[in-house]
Amino acid sequence: MTVAQTTGRFYGIGLGPGDPELLTVKAVRLIQAAPVIGYFAKAGRRGHARGIVDRWMTGDAEELPLYYPMTTEHAFDSPVYATVLAAFYANAVTAIAAHLDAGRDVAVLSEGDPLFYGSFMHLLLRLRSRYPVTLVPGVTGMAGCWAAAAEPMTWGDDTLLVVPGTLPLAGLIERLRTTDAAVIMKLGRNFGKVRIALQEAGLLRRAIYVERGTMDDEIVIPLAEKVDDKAPYFSLILIPGEGRRP
Amino acid sequence: MTVAQTTGRFYGIGLGPGDPELLTVKAVRLIQAAPVIGYFAKAGRRGHARGIVDRWMTGDAEELPLYYPMTTEHAFDSPVYATVLAAFYANAVTAIAAHLDAGRDVAVLSEGDPLFYGSFMHLLLRLRSRYPVTLVPGVTGMAGCWAAAAEPMTWGDDTLLVVPGTLPLAGLIERLRTTDAAVIMKLGRNFGKVRIALQEAGLLRRAIYVERGTMDDEIVIPLAEKVDDKAPYFSLILIPGEGRRP
Repeated sequence: MTVAQTTGRFYGIGLGPGDPELLTVKAVRLIQAAPVIGYFAKAGRRGHARGIVDRWMTGDAEELPLYYPMTTEHAFDSPVYATVLAAFYANAVTAIAAHLDAGRDVAVLSEGDPLFYGSFMHLLLRLRSRYPVTLVPGVTGMAGCWAAAAEPMTWGDDTLLVVPGTLPLAGLIERLRTTDAAVIMKLGRNFGKVRIALQEAGLLRRAIYVERGTMDDEIVIPLAEKVDDKAPYFSLILIPGEGRRP
Repeated sequence: MTVAQTTGRFYGIGLGPGDPELLTVKAVRLIQAAPVIGYFAKAGRRGHARGIVDRWMTGDAEELPLYYPMTTEHAFDSPVYATVLAAFYANAVTAIAAHLDAGRDVAVLSEGDPLFYGSFMHLLLRLRSRYPVTLVPGVTGMAGCWAAAAEPMTWGDDTLLVVPGTLPLAGLIERLRTTDAAVIMKLGRNFGKVRIALQEAGLLRRAIYVERGTMDDEIVIPLAEKVDDKAPYFSLILIPGEGRRP
């Protein structure tokens, strides 16, 4: 079957937390070698992932932007939303598979790490049985944030909980009470609730708010000193562990 | 105060999970620029961190190996162990500070990410009030392992628990029951207990064992198919999340 031998390889490339220098050497090498570069973006925008790799692009690759559908009018858990997104991923997979079938490797860019809360994973599930796959792990957004805060996160036998602010208040409090260290993501409109959960769990004084960690305009402040409840997409709260220290 | 102006800068450099190509571009640049490179190693060995950066060293830097004391005869939670380790870190800090005081930057290598379960953090706490510090986040060992397994770890609103196998059985079971995804580290002599905890939590069929992820001799197998209870230092167990997927 010569067809199988000439199929392209599907790459998932972690880009790290935002600083273009925090791509791995492997990520840069594979991006520069890939004939086709795919990336997610909002319609009409170039997208954050594409911006991060600007300095690494050789100009030789064909670019394959994957534009998210406009879904703001539907709730995340509505059937309509799921249907619209499923169609979007199906179309993206068709576009990528056309290149792979023609023997061209496709590298899809993924902010942070490709297997950690990434849209890329939806493509991977649909393509991994059909094509050879290589995954390049990346520095996660949360690791970029705790580096920006210069705060050791986990010591010795500490447990770390990564939890989205979307959980109900009671569940947030319960989980935060039983962990040594925590990262709270997806703040946005959940910010006020998360602040209450941290207070109830006795963690407010240890909480650090980080926005756009490792990017030019990063913000790091104790949560207790943050006076508003605004939290954009690239923000999270850190509770550093306090485990065993000689 | 010209003294303060000529003090060196203290760098903590994440090396990633083991593949030398998984250093970040920033890590490589700073390692190649640093006049002094520090790294932890067992006495009489070169150490794993130093091995990872072999191809990136220019040969111009002074090397400062920090040899762990022999502590295998003491329990981790014994007062003797804590005393021996505290003396070790104090000596390491003295050696590093001598370079910094002389105006030489010191870059300390850290496997994975420097602020995530790293010995480097003990140095950071002792030096950060005295010298300027730059931290370079790295790809964590666990991200290297889930890339090796090619398994998406967390979706949508999944929670992720990172937990050491050193916890008591009941605590392990309870925590594993209330998370969507999990990474279990520090297996070693805890392996049998961890296996029981996963069975009790109903997670055995989803568990993946990964050893030396991203290194040349990596092993990835379903935990249910692993017939022995041997787990070296560079091993962990993954429970991938199964959250919302369109």
